[in-house]
Amino acid sequence: MTDQTPQARLERAKEASRATAALTSADKARVLEAIALALLADAPRIIEANGRDISRGQQDGIGESLIDRLRLDEKRVAALTAAVREVAALPDPVGRVVGGHRMPNGVALEQVRVPFGVVGAIYEARPNVTVDIAALALRSGNAVVLRGGSAAHDSNAVLVDIMRAAVEGAGLTAEAIQTVDDFGRDGAKALMHGRGFIDVLIPRGSAGLIETVVTESTVPVIETGAGNVHIFLDETAPDDWARDIVVNAKVQRPSVCNAVETVLVHRQAAPRLVPLVASALESEGVAIHGDDMVVGLMSNVIPATEEDWETEYLSLDIAMKVVDSLDEALAHIRRYSTGHTESIITTDSRNAERFLAEVDSAVVMVNASTRFTDGGEFGFGAEVGISTQKLHARGPMGLSELTSTKWLARGSGQTRG
Amino acid sequence: MTDQTPQARLERAKEASRATAALTSADKARVLEAIALALLADAPRIIEANGRDISRGQQDGIGESLIDRLRLDEKRVAALTAAVREVAALPDPVGRVVGGHRMPNGVALEQVRVPFGVVGAIYEARPNVTVDIAALALRSGNAVVLRGGSAAHDSNAVLVDIMRAAVEGAGLTAEAIQTVDDFGRDGAKALMHGRGFIDVLIPRGSAGLIETVVTESTVPVIETGAGNVHIFLDETAPDDWARDIVVNAKVQRPSVCNAVETVLVHRQAAPRLVPLVASALESEGVAIHGDDMVVGLMSNVIPATEEDWETEYLSLDIAMKVVDSLDEALAHIRRYSTGHTESIITTDSRNAERFLAEVDSAVVMVNASTRFTDGGEFGFGAEVGISTQKLHARGPMGLSELTSTKWLARGSGQTRG
Repeated sequence: MTDQTPQARLERAKEASRATAALTSADKARVLEAIALALLADAPRIIEANGRDISRGQQDGIGESLIDRLRLDEKRVAALTAAVREVAALPDPVGRVVGGHRMPNGVALEQVRVPFGVVGAIYEARPNVTVDIAALALRSGNAVVLRGGSAAHDSNAVLVDIMRAAVEGAGLTAEAIQTVDDFGRDGAKALMHGRGFIDVLIPRGSAGLIETVVTESTVPVIETGAGNVHIFLDETAPDDWARDIVVNAKVQRPSVCNAVETVLVHRQAAPRLVPLVASALESEGVAIHGDDMVVGLMSNVIPATEEDWETEYLSLDIAMKVVDSLDEALAHIRRYSTGHTESIITTDSRNAERFLAEVDSAVVMVNASTRFTDGGEFGFGAEVGISTQKLHARGPMGLSELTSTKWLARGSGQTRG
Repeated sequence: MTDQTPQARLERAKEASRATAALTSADKARVLEAIALALLADAPRIIEANGRDISRGQQDGIGESLIDRLRLDEKRVAALTAAVREVAALPDPVGRVVGGHRMPNGVALEQVRVPFGVVGAIYEARPNVTVDIAALALRSGNAVVLRGGSAAHDSNAVLVDIMRAAVEGAGLTAEAIQTVDDFGRDGAKALMHGRGFIDVLIPRGSAGLIETVVTESTVPVIETGAGNVHIFLDETAPDDWARDIVVNAKVQRPSVCNAVETVLVHRQAAPRLVPLVASALESEGVAIHGDDMVVGLMSNVIPATEEDWETEYLSLDIAMKVVDSLDEALAHIRRYSTGHTESIITTDSRNAERFLAEVDSAVVMVNASTRFTDGGEFGFGAEVGISTQKLHARGPMGLSELTSTKWLARGSGQTRG
């Protein structure tokens, strides 16, 4: 396909989007099943291509957490396939009537869900995103244009190739799935400036990638993922909840956006909770970056600087700060949060409700691990990403978030008086 | 306030948005009633300031349709006030639970409507937009930053001044309503680049204004308004519906975005409908820009060029073209429509349903005037604008479209396995 321009791919996607929009729910399920079967059948080819990406990554020294995100083994290909089938089984949002009424003059108004048209995605290391987003886009009646990370280039090329062939085999045009990976930076640029061709663009990856896409794009963007996530241990936080939730939120999968990055501790509870929580974290290999109070309570604490409050570590590091009050915790979160997820651990219902009301994040929790902010956990099947903006979608996005609506008006000659 | 920078105004709006978000529905109704009373009481001052804008406009020769949009007389101030009271009476979307369930582990998830925070608006001639948008923003719990057209500068300054004083008098901070009109181009720039301060930016006005805002902004934008609106007269279109709907859609208010700009006529119906519809339009003073076939059927027709198909006249001009089929009509609409509103006049139900399904516009109609695409007509009270994009809102936007959602999660120590 190297004889094409990125713009030609966008045009083909737009053209194909008329076909995907016309598919019935049963058609779409059939197309996704064809993709699932093809991925399973071609697992060795996927894993071989992924092996080349992994080797290149190791030579380039990209670090163990990135290698982990990049890796596809048999188990992960099977998980990918299962995710596609889960998406195929989800209720189809397209055609759902979401509103409507009869106007006083008799015109019947109906607001129905329709596909966006063409969904663009720009993402980094994880090649499973290639399949997840394509499946979600198709299930919701959209064509898709993908731009993956160069670290996963070989994996993504094979995945797209397999999916396009499967889609074509199922009777839909292969043009419904496009990649612009082979155009390097020009591919991303075409997506970001594809007005009239890309109906929504979803970046998934580092804060830097997202910032670039948001700033540079002239097409509508849904910001996703950057998570400088906070947990506030209130004065009344029970020992076990404080310890178990912080450890779970940091350690269970440190490389993802819903992992906690900063723990705030109420001053009255600090002598009780800081040693308890910090030592539990340390025994899991977590490095603690603490303010003076935390440094005073524990050995082995790295003194925190301003930068620590701003950092999304995505690693076995955590920042810890003692605050005088709920107000100070709220002010700290207001200043440093990326609006992804914050949780308070407390048994004081007034403080819980204030935290829920005043924290301006996509997901605000009481007494639960921030790791629950996830499309799967929320029951959406596979996940398009976690929106940290307020327009259109906020928090974990599922199928419905890949659709728009249109108004249908049925009259019998009515004019406006 | 000339000692302030535009950025300082944005910061004050952001700060004030915490106060507006915390208002109860009753508080907000009270604030809006205070605005309504103040507008009525100060009507002479508004009309006087508007008179200065009108005189300046007439000296600058801005044209009668712009003067009409600019004008505020006693009747229009009363209408403005009535609109504010209608907004005050609308159900408050904030706090509405729009989704939720209990996770298998017992965490209770709840998705609730919350204000955006700060709504920005960039608009042109009509000063009523200043009041409409401020009222809608406040009713939905948002602070607002306004940037009106220079043609309405004096009217807008007085309107903002009156509203700020009324808001302050009702016990809310006046900072919830900001204008950046006094900073000229820098004010608009600050809005468009106000990441972290402006949660959504709504341009209302010409295609050029909207294009600039969409292209230049780094904050999320809702495109509104540009309406290259089509009506297709199908082979079976009844005489009276064809004539009455086209005349109404063009003539009732030619200066607004839901006025029809191009009429497509099925070739089989052209000898019957072109003379009928064209002469009805001409008797209302409409100039017809027609293709060869239309020119052949009528005298006084201006031969249409490519530009006519692309133009949103917003005046007593209309383009008229004969097409061979529904397919050709759909292809023409696909190429030239701005995705606002299109209507088919037909008694053929298959064609009606195809038109509804295949036209990719915010509002698609059968046998009704395009002038119905309007927040008031749709029953939303005053209108924020008509979205022609697919993200977040599509078609006439009311109060709910000025809100976002957030997820609340209430647990009792749950961690992810």
